[in-house]
Amino acid sequence: MNKYVMEFIGTFFLVFVVGLSVVGIGAGAMAPLAIGTILMVMVYAGGHISGGHYNPAVTLAVWMRGKCDTTDVPGYWTAQFIAAVVAALLVGYLKHGSLVIEAQPNMIHALLVELIFTFALAFVVLNVATSKGTAGNSFYGLAIGFTVMASAYAAGNISGGAFNPAVALGMTLMGLNKLAMLLIFWIGNFAGGALAAVTFKYLNPQE
Amino acid sequence: MNKYVMEFIGTFFLVFVVGLSVVGIGAGAMAPLAIGTILMVMVYAGGHISGGHYNPAVTLAVWMRGKCDTTDVPGYWTAQFIAAVVAALLVGYLKHGSLVIEAQPNMIHALLVELIFTFALAFVVLNVATSKGTAGNSFYGLAIGFTVMASAYAAGNISGGAFNPAVALGMTLMGLNKLAMLLIFWIGNFAGGALAAVTFKYLNPQE
Amino acid sequence: MNKYVMEFIGTFFLVFVVGLSVVGIGAGAMAPLAIGTILMVMVYAGGHISGGHYNPAVTLAVWMRGKCDTTDVPGYWTAQFIAAVVAALLVGYLKHGSLVIEAQPNMIHALLVELIFTFALAFVVLNVATSKGTAGNSFYGLAIGFTVMASAYAAGNISGGAFNPAVALGMTLMGLNKLAMLLIFWIGNFAGGALAAVTFKYLNPQE
Amino acid sequence: MNKYVMEFIGTFFLVFVVGLSVVGIGAGAMAPLAIGTILMVMVYAGGHISGGHYNPAVTLAVWMRGKCDTTDVPGYWTAQFIAAVVAALLVGYLKHGSLVIEAQPNMIHALLVELIFTFALAFVVLNVATSKGTAGNSFYGLAIGFTVMASAYAAGNISGGAFNPAVALGMTLMGLNKLAMLLIFWIGNFAGGALAAVTFKYLNPQE
Repeated sequence: MNKYVMEFIGTFFLVFVVGLSVVGIGAGAMAPLAIGTILMVMVYAGGHISGGHYNPAVTLAVWMRGKCDTTDVPGYWTAQFIAAVVAALLVGYLKHGSLVIEAQPNMIHALLVELIFTFALAFVVLNVATSKGTAGNSFYGLAIGFTVMASAYAAGNISGGAFNPAVALGMTLMGLNKLAMLLIFWIGNFAGGALAAVTFKYLNPQE
Repeated sequence: MNKYVMEFIGTFFLVFVVGLSVVGIGAGAMAPLAIGTILMVMVYAGGHISGGHYNPAVTLAVWMRGKCDTTDVPGYWTAQFIAAVVAALLVGYLKHGSLVIEAQPNMIHALLVELIFTFALAFVVLNVATSKGTAGNSFYGLAIGFTVMASAYAAGNISGGAFNPAVALGMTLMGLNKLAMLLIFWIGNFAGGALAAVTFKYLNPQE
Repeated sequence: MNKYVMEFIGTFFLVFVVGLSVVGIGAGAMAPLAIGTILMVMVYAGGHISGGHYNPAVTLAVWMRGKCDTTDVPGYWTAQFIAAVVAALLVGYLKHGSLVIEAQPNMIHALLVELIFTFALAFVVLNVATSKGTAGNSFYGLAIGFTVMASAYAAGNISGGAFNPAVALGMTLMGLNKLAMLLIFWIGNFAGGALAAVTFKYLNPQE
Repeated sequence: MNKYVMEFIGTFFLVFVVGLSVVGIGAGAMAPLAIGTILMVMVYAGGHISGGHYNPAVTLAVWMRGKCDTTDVPGYWTAQFIAAVVAALLVGYLKHGSLVIEAQPNMIHALLVELIFTFALAFVVLNVATSKGTAGNSFYGLAIGFTVMASAYAAGNISGGAFNPAVALGMTLMGLNKLAMLLIFWIGNFAGGALAAVTFKYLNPQE
C-alpha cells in the first residue's frame, strides 16, 4: 500500500506543477524546467519506496523489463490516474477561469513525437534505475526528470508535451487539449514505453 | 554553537538572494533558479555541520521525525529568524527605495499552495537526507534546493512563494507582501512541515 | 553491435533535439539548455553500453587516448553520421517549410570557437569518463552534457554551435548553415578532439 | 607544472565564457547559467589534477586552510592571471568593436556584494572539496560552479559580478568596467576568500 501512496504523491505533484506552470499566468518559458525538476525531486524522494514511476507508460516498461510485479501494476496505474484527476481539479480551483484552449495540433506529428520522447524517457529510466551497469549511482533522478524537460522544450509546441498517460489525462481535464488528443497521447505514450522495454532487453541481453 | 552559526550563514544567504533577485531590478524570470540554487549550495556546504535546514518548518519536520534534538530546536529557529532579519536589512540598504508592494493575493489560495509546497520540500528533505533508503547519496542538495525552484515557478504568482517561515519574515520586512500574509505563510509552512513528518513516518514504518 | 545501436540512439536524440529546438518556432533562449540536457541524459543512459560518445570527434579523442578499440571506430562513426541524417530528415518532415538560413559567419572566428569548445568537450569527456582520478563518479553525464550547453550559449552566435561533426552534418541537412560551413565544422571539431587527447596525455602521464 | 597548466586551462575557459556571454550580443539572461556551468565542468575535469581553483581568492582560501602548498601559490596565481589576459585578448579579437561600458556602480555596494559572494564561493569550495565530512562526494563541481551562477543572478547588476580577481582582470581588459573597479574587485574578492578560510576553521575545529 505504501508504494501506491508514494505513486499518488509523486504523480500528484507532477501534474499539479504542470498545471500551475502552463495554465493562465504560469512559468512561461521556464515551465519545462519547473516540470522536469519536480519529477526529478519526486524520483529522488520516492524512488526507494515505490521506484518513482509516476507514469503509467514507465510502469508498463518496468513491468515488461521484469522489475515490477504483475500484481502491482493495477495499483500503480490506479494511483497515478487518480492523482492526475485530483491535481487537475485543484488546478481548476486555484486558476478558475484562466484555462487555455490550444490550437489542434497535427495528429500524426503529435503521435510521432509523443512516441519518440516517451521512448526516450522510459529508456532512460530502465538504464539508470534498473540496470546493473549503473547500479548505485546518484544521478538517476536528474537523468529521468531532465529527460522530460528536454523533451518538453523540443516537442512541447508540436504535441503539447505529455510523455505520460496520467499527465495527458490531467492536461485534458484542465482543458489544455481537445478530448481527441487524449487517445493520441495514450497510444503514443504506451507504445513508446513498450518499445523502450524491448530495446533495453536487446541492448542488455545479460539482464 | 557551530550548528547555529551554520544555520545563520545558510539562511542569511537564502534570504539575501531572495531579496536581491526579486526586489527592484533583479533576476527576473531566473529568480527561482537563483534562489533554488543558493539553497542547494548551502545545503551541500553546511549539511555536514548542521544538517542544512535553513528553514524553521524543515527543523520542525526533522525534529518530529526524530533526527533533531529537542534542545537544538530553539537555537536553530533563533539563528534562522535572526539571519532573515539581517539579510532583509542588508537588502534594504543595497536596494534603497526600490521596494515593490505586491497585490494582495487570495488568502485561501495562498495558504493552500504554501502548505502543499512546504509539504513537498520537507518530504523531500526527510527522504533524501534522513532516510536509510537513500543513505550516502550525492543528490540531497540538488533535490532539496530544486524543490524550492520548481515550487517558486509553479506557485510564486499565487502566494509570493516563501515555503519557509524565515524567508516569509524576510520578505515581509523587505515589503514584498502585506503583514497579514506573514500569518498565512507561517500557518501554511509549519503545517506543511508537520504533515510531511507524519507522511514520512507512515511511508517508512521501519525508520 | 549493441554499441553501435546505442551510439545511433544517442546521436539521433541529440541531433533531433537540436533540430526541434532551433528550427522554426523552437525553444528560443532555452535551446542550449535542452540540447545539453538531452546529451546528458543519453550519456547517463548509454554510457555503460557504448561509452556514450555520440560525437565522432569524441570517438577520435577516446581512441587516441587508448580507450576505444581501433576496430570499433568505423562502426561508431557510421552509426553517428547515419543517426544525424535520420534525425535531420525527421525534423524536416515535422517542421516542413520552416527552415532558417543563417547569415554566413566569419569563417576564421567560427573555426576558432569550434576548435576551442570541441577541445573543451573532449577534454571534459576524457577526464570525467576515462580517468582513474575520477573513477566511480556520478557526475560524468552532467559535466559532458552541460559543457555543450555552456559552449552553445557562449559561441552559438559566432559559429552556429556544433562542436560535433555529426551534429554539423545534421545542421547542414536541415538548412541551418551553408554547405561550406560543414568543412569548417569538421576541421575544427576533429582538430579540437585530437588536441584534447594530446593535452590529456600530457597532464595525466601516469595513464 | 601540470597543475599550473590545468589552472591556466580552467581559468581561460571561465574568463572566455564570461566574455563571450556578456560582451555585445551574448547569452542575455542566460549568461550566469553559462558562466556557472563552465566553472562546474572545468572543476569536474581538472579537480583531480590541480584542485580546480581557477580563482586567486579560492587559492588564498585553500592555502590558508592548509590544503595548498605555499610553494604552489605563486604558480597558481600566475597561471590564473595569465589565462585571464589571454582569454580577454581572444574575446577582443572575436568581438571586435562591440565592447560595452557599464555605468559606474556604487563602490561601497559593489565592495560589499563582492566580499559577501566571494565568501560564499570560497566557503562552499572549502566545505565540499577539502572537508572530511563530505569526502568522496560527486556534487563538488555542481556546488562550486552554481554558487557563481546564483551570485551572478543576485548581484550581477550591483557590482558586475566577478567574485574572482582573475575574472575581474579579464572583465577590466574587455572594457566591462572602469579601471578603478578592479581595485574594488580585488579587495572584496581576496577579503571574502580569507574570511571564508577563517570561518571554515572555526566551524570545523577538528580539521
